[in-house]
Amino acid sequence: MTPSPIHAYLADLHARHLRNTDGDVADYIPELKQVDPEQFGICVATRDGVVYEVGDTRQPFTIQSVSKPFTYGLALADNGEDRVLAKIGVEPSGDAFNAISLAPKTGAPMNPLINAGAIAACGLVHGEGIDGRLARILEAFGHFAGRTLDVDERVYASESATGHRNRAIGWMLRTFDVLPDEPTPTLETYFRQCSIRVTCRDLAIMGATLANGGVNPVTGRRAIAAGYVDNVLSVMATCGMYDFSGEWLYRTGLPAKSGVGGGILAVQPARLGIGVFSPRLDAHGNSVRGIAVCRELAADLGLHIFDVSRRPAPVMRLTTTRRTVASSRRRPRTAADYLHGVGNRLRLYHLQGALVFASVEPVIRELMERTATADAFIVNLRSVQSLDGAAARLLAHTQAALAERGKRLCLTEASSWWETLTDAGMPRDTFFGDDDFALEHCENALLAKRFPDEAWDRPVELAQCAMFVGLDDAALATLDAVLARRTWNAGQTIIAAGQHSDDLFVIMRGSAMVSIPTQEGVARLAVFTPGMTFGEVAFIDREARTANVTAIDEVECRVLTQAAFAQLELDAPGIKIRLLQNIARGLTAFLRQADTELAALR
Amino acid sequence: MTPSPIHAYLADLHARHLRNTDGDVADYIPELKQVDPEQFGICVATRDGVVYEVGDTRQPFTIQSVSKPFTYGLALADNGEDRVLAKIGVEPSGDAFNAISLAPKTGAPMNPLINAGAIAACGLVHGEGIDGRLARILEAFGHFAGRTLDVDERVYASESATGHRNRAIGWMLRTFDVLPDEPTPTLETYFRQCSIRVTCRDLAIMGATLANGGVNPVTGRRAIAAGYVDNVLSVMATCGMYDFSGEWLYRTGLPAKSGVGGGILAVQPARLGIGVFSPRLDAHGNSVRGIAVCRELAADLGLHIFDVSRRPAPVMRLTTTRRTVASSRRRPRTAADYLHGVGNRLRLYHLQGALVFASVEPVIRELMERTATADAFIVNLRSVQSLDGAAARLLAHTQAALAERGKRLCLTEASSWWETLTDAGMPRDTFFGDDDFALEHCENALLAKRFPDEAWDRPVELAQCAMFVGLDDAALATLDAVLARRTWNAGQTIIAAGQHSDDLFVIMRGSAMVSIPTQEGVARLAVFTPGMTFGEVAFIDREARTANVTAIDEVECRVLTQAAFAQLELDAPGIKIRLLQNIARGLTAFLRQADTELAALR
Repeated sequence: MTPSPIHAYLADLHARHLRNTDGDVADYIPELKQVDPEQFGICVATRDGVVYEVGDTRQPFTIQSVSKPFTYGLALADNGEDRVLAKIGVEPSGDAFNAISLAPKTGAPMNPLINAGAIAACGLVHGEGIDGRLARILEAFGHFAGRTLDVDERVYASESATGHRNRAIGWMLRTFDVLPDEPTPTLETYFRQCSIRVTCRDLAIMGATLANGGVNPVTGRRAIAAGYVDNVLSVMATCGMYDFSGEWLYRTGLPAKSGVGGGILAVQPARLGIGVFSPRLDAHGNSVRGIAVCRELAADLGLHIFDVSRRPAPVMRLTTTRRTVASSRRRPRTAADYLHGVGNRLRLYHLQGALVFASVEPVIRELMERTATADAFIVNLRSVQSLDGAAARLLAHTQAALAERGKRLCLTEASSWWETLTDAGMPRDTFFGDDDFALEHCENALLAKRFPDEAWDRPVELAQCAMFVGLDDAALATLDAVLARRTWNAGQTIIAAGQHSDDLFVIMRGSAMVSIPTQEGVARLAVFTPGMTFGEVAFIDREARTANVTAIDEVECRVLTQAAFAQLELDAPGIKIRLLQNIARGLTAFLRQADTELAALR
Repeated sequence: MTPSPIHAYLADLHARHLRNTDGDVADYIPELKQVDPEQFGICVATRDGVVYEVGDTRQPFTIQSVSKPFTYGLALADNGEDRVLAKIGVEPSGDAFNAISLAPKTGAPMNPLINAGAIAACGLVHGEGIDGRLARILEAFGHFAGRTLDVDERVYASESATGHRNRAIGWMLRTFDVLPDEPTPTLETYFRQCSIRVTCRDLAIMGATLANGGVNPVTGRRAIAAGYVDNVLSVMATCGMYDFSGEWLYRTGLPAKSGVGGGILAVQPARLGIGVFSPRLDAHGNSVRGIAVCRELAADLGLHIFDVSRRPAPVMRLTTTRRTVASSRRRPRTAADYLHGVGNRLRLYHLQGALVFASVEPVIRELMERTATADAFIVNLRSVQSLDGAAARLLAHTQAALAERGKRLCLTEASSWWETLTDAGMPRDTFFGDDDFALEHCENALLAKRFPDEAWDRPVELAQCAMFVGLDDAALATLDAVLARRTWNAGQTIIAAGQHSDDLFVIMRGSAMVSIPTQEGVARLAVFTPGMTFGEVAFIDREARTANVTAIDEVECRVLTQAAFAQLELDAPGIKIRLLQNIARGLTAFLRQADTELAALR
């Protein structure tokens, strides 16, 4: 694959910051001191699971405090939000990582990202004994990283041998019953949790998993329930970098977490995960290069969550009416003229993107404002990427408000959102397979109101067909002898796509559907009823048929073959000229309609 | 206007919370105590300037601490980020609103939303004396609210008479030189700032102005530079609700600020502003109903900034190739066949929405991956809503990377982003007015490479024209006598839109452009060169012309009139039949092309 400008940008960033040798590796335990201080990796993983990496991105190191938000997420999953909040606060403490910071009365740690809160969160993870709990933590972290992780036993031994301050915290938590039992097993689990080996690439993918609503975008497996992702990101945003959290959010605008192993994980919500690894630390215990790289990345790539200059694509992708887009049921002249005349009463919308309160609000406003002049609204959801409960409830309320005014809402291509919408109270008869069926339904309603007694699809005579306009009785009698007469039963194929048949068909009785096969089944392109012609394109250009034509009910056609048409040139050139003119006129009508639709879609 | 379901939702919310009479109105000054405690308003203003309001949304009250982020924004605008950060930190203090919380060595207040930081920010606002500085604050707040604001003089007098603790803070700030002069004028300005009268509706619009990148969406006037909006929202997110800030963000996910006047302002970045007003306060000094309403709004409407379940519309709206979409220059058969055959080497993309790093990354990946098989990339920016510097730089780097490999990038309909892109290094010859011109340019390049010596637009004889295919020499001689011969100079109109002319034209020499007038000028629909036919649709259906045809250079056509065509039926029906068949075949070709394009666009 050709190297990407994004990779080139990251490589340049890496090369520039490689020169920065400020700071010192963590030295509170010998194992961390032995690390090569020059190691340096940068990795960006997108919500779609694309990974860009430069430098030492596959070098394992211990996760340390970057573990804290993930264990907190697991504690939430195991206990629910209320039980966890009763034990651990979510207030930034303004204090350093090792401050004990317990609330005066309850002894609840201020937040889960200081050591006290992290130990309390570890204590809330379900699991039998140290091994059982650690296994669950390893499994959860492994889902985030998308691979099996393990513990660096030497670092763990060292952490355990020197973790006296954390033992003091553990006993303080025991005092206040934040930890219900003797704290040693929890502490030993916690020490192992901090000693889990990850790579810079792992951190980026773990971040991308949070950005992606809890589903690992590389493996496609869920690592955490979507409902807890906002909790985890919120504490990272306010407390992720200890007493540097406020400035970090102000500068980078990214929820993040650092560890003394040299790792930093940052998340652009709904977009990206970032992992940086470089072991030299500043006085706060944060990777020097990591902080500098994240700040530069955030500025260069415009990642600040509060950069509100971006404007999403409007959720209304297409707005049009029945004047521009008709159902594929070809209507007799009277019906077609009437429907065209009242076309503005039937409105069609295509939505796209994320349907949330703010994006669906203009849609609802548009529909309610149009009730003065329109009777029916077709809303196509094919290009909708997500639809939340708030949007579903508002759409359901809008349907009800429209129905109260005698107006119709039809939702099309909405199968992905059917459950969310019906749960929100959307009636089942609001849903239609596609625009075409909804349009036909609404057109029929308009026609039934205007022509209550008209039966549209009655059998016709030759003289009533558009193809034979301008021919006198004698000419019609000539044609009657020339045209073959054929019938098909319901469901039978009249024309098959790909076939080199080149006859022309005029329907005398019944109706036929033109369709093409699609991935989902078939797409209906047109419905023809008595008096109408089909097959004229291949009749003229003798190219292969591009669509299937199938009898909907019993169909009778008069058929003009190429042989009969050739013979007409000798026997009755005037009739042949009239037929060619009528065919050409039919083609120009289709062409004008196609141009109108093309202009609307562009 | 028909009442909206959104209004109905807010009215229900209002009615339910109206029953909540917990808390007490502020009583530290008599004026605040006199307020009617039952007052209650809820207002939501969208980024587009649509305002939904229920209850007492037009009732004035004093802004109090809700003023702090806006004065901080003004201090940033007057002094720049670095000077302000040197005087005021951005760390959450974990303390109550009136805590002094100064950094140990510098005396800098921890953040601008505690009183100490707010007084320091007020001191940084430029302006001559108390009146000059207050006038600037009132002007700035007025731009946010979209109307002229004033000070409640009685509340101010009371604030000033009782503000001893703030005076103590002022002198502490003076001690550390955070305030450079005697603090009294700054304090008196600050007391007035807190006594500015606003309504609940004002708060929502002020919030919507922040959501909209600093431009008031109702008035369209800028209230603050876009570059400072993220700073203001960041401090609101981490420090906006004092020692309740962490939990507030965790629960609602909205940057916000409350005041003891009973107002709460919350922002869903890039989306909404929310104002709630209800004077009864809780122990933190926050409006009881305000807190409850915001929590419910955030949950019901899915407003949490870290709710990452939403997926924006993909930025690539349309991806196709020259096989599907051709330039409007009609090519002679050999050229057309060649271009169709190599059509995959010329790719066309339509982008939409916000072009930022994360959304443009898949586009760049796509282009770089396609370099193996494609020569040229046309990228249409018409539906792009915003484009930031990061996206512009990446696109410019991509252009350079493509050029290095001998590939061509063309940007079309990019005039809104021309400056951003050229500033980022995009060469000027990358830009084309529209897809059609870019397609023609790239097609010409492909043809020039394959047929270096071919002159395509040479004059033709009747026998070389598609319209006369299948006619022998005798028939051509007959037609030569029947067809009129007409010429036009460059720029002359051949057909005018709306006209009821119904001749058919075959170009023998020169080229002609089909176009329609648009808001921006004219849109080119087609270019015809020697050997080609135009005007056949109206020639067949006798409807009005829908487009203009203009001579590009000197044009000579042979013209078939309706009269001559009618006469042919008598004199030479065989020729007429052949012509009708050729016309119909031309129409079927257009129709097949239109169907292909329609399928691609849908």
